[in-house]
Parts: sequence; C-alpha cells; structure tokens
Amino acid sequence: MKPQLAYQHPRCGPIRELLQIVGSKWAVLVVGLLSERPKRFTELKREIGGITQKSLTTVLRELEKDGLVERTVTPTIPPRVDYGLTRLGTTLLGPLAALTDWAIENEMAVAAARRRYQSSKKSR
Amino acid sequence: MKPQLAYQHPRCGPIRELLQIVGSKWAVLVVGLLSERPKRFTELKREIGGITQKSLTTVLRELEKDGLVERTVTPTIPPRVDYGLTRLGTTLLGPLAALTDWAIENEMAVAAARRRYQSSKKSR
Repeated sequence: MKPQLAYQHPRCGPIRELLQIVGSKWAVLVVGLLSERPKRFTELKREIGGITQKSLTTVLRELEKDGLVERTVTPTIPPRVDYGLTRLGTTLLGPLAALTDWAIENEMAVAAARRRYQSSKKSR
Repeated sequence: MKPQLAYQHPRCGPIRELLQIVGSKWAVLVVGLLSERPKRFTELKREIGGITQKSLTTVLRELEKDGLVERTVTPTIPPRVDYGLTRLGTTLLGPLAALTDWAIENEMAVAAARRRYQSSKKSR
C-alpha cells in the first residue's frame, strides 16, 4: 500500500507551515547541528559556513518561535547564550532523516534524470 | 539513539537540492495528488486551487526534470497529456508522509509554542 500524504487531510495548514521550516536549507542545517548537543551562536555560525549573522539570527528566532529550539542564557559576563533542541525539536529528527537519506540514496537517479531531460530537450 | 541527519555527510549537495523540491509547497501538493493516479494538467490545477497556470507548469517541469514525474502524451485531437509519478517519484512518498504526519501530530504543540513566544516577547 502506498503511504498517504497527510496534507490530503482537510487540515493542510500545518503542512504548509512545516514546509516553511524544512523548506529552509538553513533551518534544516541548524536542527541537524543542534542534534549533537546545544551550541553557541558563534559555534553554529562557524559550523554552517556561508550563513550571515542576520540569517542565522532569523532562523534561530523562527525555530524558537515554533518551539523546536530553546535559548538558554547563562548570566556570566559577558552573558553566555546556548541554543539547543527542545523535546519537540528532537521529534523532528526522525522524519527529517528519512527525507535526507532519500536524497543521498537517490542522488545518482536524480542526476541521471536531469541528464536525460537535457538531452531530450536538445533533440526536440 | 538519535537519528543522524544525512547532510552532516560530506555530500550535502543532494540534500540542498532536495530541499528545493520539498521546500516548494506546490511540489509537495503535486506529488501527493499524483500518488492517487496519473492526472491531467487541468485536473491538477482544479484540485490544488489557488495555483496559477504558470506556477503549475513550472513545478511540473521541475519534477519531470528531476525524474519524479513523467509526462505522457496521447496523440488524440487535441493531444491528451497526463502526468504521473515515476518509480523514483513513488519512493519519495514514504519520507514525505513521515514529515507531513509529524506536522499534523505536532500542530497543537507548535501553535502553543508560538503563543508562549508571543507572550514572552510582550513581558520582556
């Protein structure tokens, strides 16, 4: 039996909202990096590479707003801020891993399809 | 053991490409609707609702390029064009369903987190 996609459910609102999270390359990277352990802003920024301070701030705020990431401030001087996955954030790792595994497994098939598509366009 | 996210794999290119597919609300909707059976352009357009002719054309072309959707032309007058999932496209249904199920299951938790975030912002 083929799996039913849940957005065929009348309540497709949550799906559309979810896509705003997982559709963001940065959000998926941040969730993945925080799956190891809580990290500081500068640590995340270094590990991701190529993300601006502003983008990382935005994505962390969005993830915090959705309850996937929590921000812990330790009142040292200067204050230390750590970001970590919440329990809810951790539950997203399984489904995300299923999807990213699919991408790795099917990389060659997708690349081959693209080459076929390009050749068929040329011969049309 | 927590699932490892595969983009931590050195080859994170395919993940970023995948996100371009699943990050598109329309692409996910199209893949889901085609999971029932092959459909015609006008049928898809009616079922999705709110998508322009141009957007649907673009998303179908992208999915075809990636080898997830195939286009079958029946030489009637006028020609009949059907879109259906390829074998590769069908393999994406499982991982997508895992993600959309998560969104349905955790809709309330995400909404509650958002309300908490809004109140905490007000009291800061």
